[in-house]
Amino acid sequence: MFRRVPRDEAFYGLLGRTAAHTLAAARELPALLGATSDAERKAVAKAIADLEGAGDAATHEVIRSATAAFLTPFDRADLITLARALDNCLDQIELAADLVRLHRLSTFPPRVGRQVDTILRMSELTVEAMPRLRSPESLADFWIEINRLENMGDKAHRKLTVEILEEYATDPITALRLLLVVEALEAAINAFETVADTIEGIAVKES
Amino acid sequence: MFRRVPRDEAFYGLLGRTAAHTLAAARELPALLGATSDAERKAVAKAIADLEGAGDAATHEVIRSATAAFLTPFDRADLITLARALDNCLDQIELAADLVRLHRLSTFPPRVGRQVDTILRMSELTVEAMPRLRSPESLADFWIEINRLENMGDKAHRKLTVEILEEYATDPITALRLLLVVEALEAAINAFETVADTIEGIAVKES
Amino acid sequence: MFRRVPRDEAFYGLLGRTAAHTLAAARELPALLGATSDAERKAVAKAIADLEGAGDAATHEVIRSATAAFLTPFDRADLITLARALDNCLDQIELAADLVRLHRLSTFPPRVGRQVDTILRMSELTVEAMPRLRSPESLADFWIEINRLENMGDKAHRKLTVEILEEYATDPITALRLLLVVEALEAAINAFETVADTIEGIAVKES
Repeated sequence: MFRRVPRDEAFYGLLGRTAAHTLAAARELPALLGATSDAERKAVAKAIADLEGAGDAATHEVIRSATAAFLTPFDRADLITLARALDNCLDQIELAADLVRLHRLSTFPPRVGRQVDTILRMSELTVEAMPRLRSPESLADFWIEINRLENMGDKAHRKLTVEILEEYATDPITALRLLLVVEALEAAINAFETVADTIEGIAVKES
Repeated sequence: MFRRVPRDEAFYGLLGRTAAHTLAAARELPALLGATSDAERKAVAKAIADLEGAGDAATHEVIRSATAAFLTPFDRADLITLARALDNCLDQIELAADLVRLHRLSTFPPRVGRQVDTILRMSELTVEAMPRLRSPESLADFWIEINRLENMGDKAHRKLTVEILEEYATDPITALRLLLVVEALEAAINAFETVADTIEGIAVKES
Repeated sequence: MFRRVPRDEAFYGLLGRTAAHTLAAARELPALLGATSDAERKAVAKAIADLEGAGDAATHEVIRSATAAFLTPFDRADLITLARALDNCLDQIELAADLVRLHRLSTFPPRVGRQVDTILRMSELTVEAMPRLRSPESLADFWIEINRLENMGDKAHRKLTVEILEEYATDPITALRLLLVVEALEAAINAFETVADTIEGIAVKES
């Protein structure tokens, strides 16, 4: 009998692939907010949904690999937790995009653009972090910066709820539609924080 | 001194009991949606609340047993996580039911019925899965099907928010009441996915 | 080479400090609800935000200490989970307070005051529990009482959604503002339950 000895590289590669899909999806968000027709919104939301499907496939491959493998770079349960946390970032981005399309929203308070910028920056940082998972304790700059961005995003989110309810004081249905979208964007921002917290937890355990 | 050696069977039995209560509660949901009077809604919501109480008791017994026992079928922490995840399915069903009663809702978009069907199917699958926890790795069909159903439920939920905000464009208060209910149903669907993910995680760790 | 052997006391001290900040913040909530001017609301929300900042600092110190230490009172991962769960209580209190300030809310259904009382009581119980973490299994009275309070809080929350939507039937925007605040209070109550559940889980594992 031969023991299959997976190369750890495979794990980093798969996590890196999910992170890359997440970044690609985040890069579509400005086009979605700026779209001027249903057809345009539909096309962008479709592109993001395709990326989300690809991210899902990579996540399931990580989890299946963890099952079959005799060796994993770190604790199997942590690896799965991290893979799922990463997957959730793209899930929330896809949800936000789909809500924009389904509710046919074309006008947004300016601060929504800043939430999208935060998601974009978090996606870039996460792509850069994945290959550095070989030494999780070296990622302190990553989890500190993600936490800082999340904090800013959180404060912006609160102000967004005020802006939306003031601007649409006479149109509560549109206010509700926008609140659903900004809640999904906030959930995406929180999802990146969970990734950072998970990595920090792994670093603490491995230290 | 004697070491108490619990029969593993007890754990599966208690988890199975919670799952059975969840299924019984899910089976009440169609009657709740079809109820034509406050009295009828109150009676069904009460039946579901009683089942939720019984489920709670079984869950606490699992957790207490894990404490006292010297042997558990798998990792104690995982067992508790699974018991809590399972408990949460029924909690969310009970919340949805109570919101229907408290907000005295009697009319629902058709898609709500399909969300209820999804919860019912997920409950059946979960009841069937519990005795098979002896070999968690054999439950791949379970967690794959639950994930598929969750995905469908998620897509249906998004469309429901659109339908509700369109249909009640001039009645935002009723729209809000319905949104609270469909959010609880969506939380129930997500809770089943957490059960499936937890079992998949256990299977990976045990493999 | 010398192994740093941290005194366990430091962990309890830091967790106790976060709990104390949480209690101090909870004690500000009645003043916030009773505030009669923007300036007053701003001052109270600022005091709570400062406490939240101090709680954050203590939490990060717990996590950093867990990394550097060779000995921790119990499993490192559990310690971090507990520190984050505790931190989240104050985060949610701060969110609720900031939403009251930002949305300039000055009138609340009476039941909101009872939710605040629940948070206050939960904070007191948590402060008392922290030094007793040395023997987590002795904290059964704590987690049982927190669960009981959470259950009550949950039922009150549901009724609050009904009260708000009835009372503001002709003012959906104000209803939405109030729903955001009571949702944050409910999240705070749930956060205390997560603390209790985490401690129960630790007790089970250590038993």
